[in-house]
Amino acid sequence: MADLDSVQALTFDVFGTVVDWRRSIIREGEVLGRAKGLTVDWAKFADTWRGLYQPMLSRVRNGELPWTKLDTLHRMSLDRLLVDFGIAGLSEAEIDHLNRAWHRLDPWPDAVEGLTRLRRRFILATCSNGNVAMMVDMARRAGLPWDAILGAETARHYKPLPEAYLITAELLGLRPEQCMMVAAHNGDLAAAAGCGLRTAFVPRPEEHGPGQNTDLAPRRDYDAVAKDFVDLALKLGC
Amino acid sequence: MADLDSVQALTFDVFGTVVDWRRSIIREGEVLGRAKGLTVDWAKFADTWRGLYQPMLSRVRNGELPWTKLDTLHRMSLDRLLVDFGIAGLSEAEIDHLNRAWHRLDPWPDAVEGLTRLRRRFILATCSNGNVAMMVDMARRAGLPWDAILGAETARHYKPLPEAYLITAELLGLRPEQCMMVAAHNGDLAAAAGCGLRTAFVPRPEEHGPGQNTDLAPRRDYDAVAKDFVDLALKLGC
Repeated sequence: MADLDSVQALTFDVFGTVVDWRRSIIREGEVLGRAKGLTVDWAKFADTWRGLYQPMLSRVRNGELPWTKLDTLHRMSLDRLLVDFGIAGLSEAEIDHLNRAWHRLDPWPDAVEGLTRLRRRFILATCSNGNVAMMVDMARRAGLPWDAILGAETARHYKPLPEAYLITAELLGLRPEQCMMVAAHNGDLAAAAGCGLRTAFVPRPEEHGPGQNTDLAPRRDYDAVAKDFVDLALKLGC
Repeated sequence: MADLDSVQALTFDVFGTVVDWRRSIIREGEVLGRAKGLTVDWAKFADTWRGLYQPMLSRVRNGELPWTKLDTLHRMSLDRLLVDFGIAGLSEAEIDHLNRAWHRLDPWPDAVEGLTRLRRRFILATCSNGNVAMMVDMARRAGLPWDAILGAETARHYKPLPEAYLITAELLGLRPEQCMMVAAHNGDLAAAAGCGLRTAFVPRPEEHGPGQNTDLAPRRDYDAVAKDFVDLALKLGC
């Protein structure tokens, strides 16, 4: 492992890395389904919703859409999903509540304990494509001890564009190499490393449910690889 | 008091409202003075440094300077102060440490308890002219339980420009009237109210030391007036 004495902040990917979005969206769908008498394959619904995520971000990254926060992109996708899955009879308040399911994602079981330990030594900031309000609501509900909520919305650029990482470091008053990006995704870490950040890979082999075949192992030589956040704390000397 | 049921977030001025910058800067100066054998009137030094604050911000607000974070403006002022106060013989590291005294400000005695109570019901965000790194360091040292560090740097406009308040509300995903600005300064609250935010006045009659004759009483009809943050929590039903 490289000398990490200069690292002062850890910047975290959130969806999949800190929280289990898939099980959480399925749970929210099932609650709604029971309340409204809907018969929906909520796992497929969750996967389809998330599947529209990168295409939506691309439309902002390539300039087809002006800056649009993730809550709004999620809602654009959701409106389409409701039609495709034949979900009818929801009020505007119910649709909005479902859209904000992304504010109510559950953390992985090790996340709160690991972050709490890591925070003793490092500044902890989000570097997520989620918008600030989404991250704040999620943190308050789950007890995630962030020092700062940063990332795409404060940089007004979506990862993996360099600005998302570089402006996050700048807002923390740090050089890129004083920040370590923590993610469960090789692509995110490759982009962060390209900007000069240190990198930590924490695989989440159940993020995409059974049969996941992506991001099971590190594809590069990261500064740290850990099996969960408690293990990461141990490996970083916290 | 107006109906405040729709208020979801409290946005805080920090210098003077949450932290006692004057005593803290005097304390930092005295420590440095003893270490380096300097004879300086540190109260006058603190007041002069803070006195250069609004003129510096004005240079950014009126476009004379491009966007410049407060740490950098503090340093520009400090370089001038060192000459004016005849302080010589400091290394670059020592000057930088002194400049970062603004990252080490002590909270008023009621601040942590009051914020902790208020956080049970409200989202708590900074809406300060201090930059993110300064606010993060201050919060970690003092134990200030912010949900989000927002304000001038994330809005790229200094208070009392409307953007500083409006972009902070927008990042919280809230309409202005769903936010309540908490400040010890009538001018800050007047600007926030002009943007549609709710307002709470918490006077800090010792902010400027003995003989303070400004901001001792509310100048308008605010949504709440409290003698400290614990009292504010009580008045807001927390």
